[in-house]
Amino acid sequence: MARYSPSIQDLINRLGALPGIGAKSATRVALHILNMPEEDAKGLSDSIINARKNTFRCSVCQNLTDSDPCPICSDPSRDKTTVCVVESPRDILTMERIHEYKGLYHVLHGVYDPAGGKAIADITLNQLIERLTLHPEINEVIMATNPTIEGNATALYVSRLLSNSGIKITRLASGLPLGSELEFSNDYTLTSAFKGRVDITS
Amino acid sequence: MARYSPSIQDLINRLGALPGIGAKSATRVALHILNMPEEDAKGLSDSIINARKNTFRCSVCQNLTDSDPCPICSDPSRDKTTVCVVESPRDILTMERIHEYKGLYHVLHGVYDPAGGKAIADITLNQLIERLTLHPEINEVIMATNPTIEGNATALYVSRLLSNSGIKITRLASGLPLGSELEFSNDYTLTSAFKGRVDITS
Repeated sequence: MARYSPSIQDLINRLGALPGIGAKSATRVALHILNMPEEDAKGLSDSIINARKNTFRCSVCQNLTDSDPCPICSDPSRDKTTVCVVESPRDILTMERIHEYKGLYHVLHGVYDPAGGKAIADITLNQLIERLTLHPEINEVIMATNPTIEGNATALYVSRLLSNSGIKITRLASGLPLGSELEFSNDYTLTSAFKGRVDITS
Repeated sequence: MARYSPSIQDLINRLGALPGIGAKSATRVALHILNMPEEDAKGLSDSIINARKNTFRCSVCQNLTDSDPCPICSDPSRDKTTVCVVESPRDILTMERIHEYKGLYHVLHGVYDPAGGKAIADITLNQLIERLTLHPEINEVIMATNPTIEGNATALYVSRLLSNSGIKITRLASGLPLGSELEFSNDYTLTSAFKGRVDITS
């Protein structure tokens, strides 16, 4: 016997299917929604539809946007010669947070992950290649995919794909996080830090 | 009023002053020791004295050892041309764990940390300089101090000190730990990974 009426249970189920919302949270949120003033609930419902309707991929960088080109692509102050390739729109926010990078972005919407069912055609790699062809002013592609097996494989794939393009391909450094201690690092990270050791001879 | 007799309380206090042993653990350990067979307790007590008596710093690398030179320094299969400089003997175990490094070590027994009361003279930096002078075959010094403010400062200090020596000074790479995600990295680490991005043009 269901504890809640079918329409409430449906709301709980749909909320609970969202990332980071467990069964208990879903129930709490659902009951909160049922107690909201009518217009707030309507507003929430509409905003889901509107966000979907008004959001699309920037024709240049593939980031989610409600104007095309997106604000970053159309910002005249950004450096048009570098493109930072990230997995998801969230990663753009992360990169912007450090206030170091002034160039443009390209959102892959995933990484090459055959085991996870993501083929090359499922990410926006063709759009990246096309963009690089259309914009010869781009002279560096920074591969900022996550330092996971799939992220590294995707970076390597792009590097090989563009090997004859004359474009410099770089990768965010992997190694020991700042403030960490050798003793508590995992072996893969320490191996990577050792192999990628940098010359500091002054 | 003390709960335990003075000699028990003294044992608890001394155990509790060890790193990672809290008041409750100290009491539990102390009572365990009191319940041990006589010879085990004697053995523990003696081993503390013996470990202290028979352990000293290797005259070459300053690692704690009971033979001089230590097993690593006297191992003919190790590469004598590189020295990996670490903060503590524990870090040697960590580096050995990755099975990548085949050279020698130098243990600083700390880092240059004026705020923490560690001056240059308190670490074994002079011994390192002397060693490099005595062993011209050493052509690379890998600074594997922790990627903390003090560890980085110490690496930089050594790099400047040896700037005219012809010896290559390298530093373990700092950056994103393998398997991590950009989104959850801290800003300093991401900045370091960005600034230290490596060329993967193929």
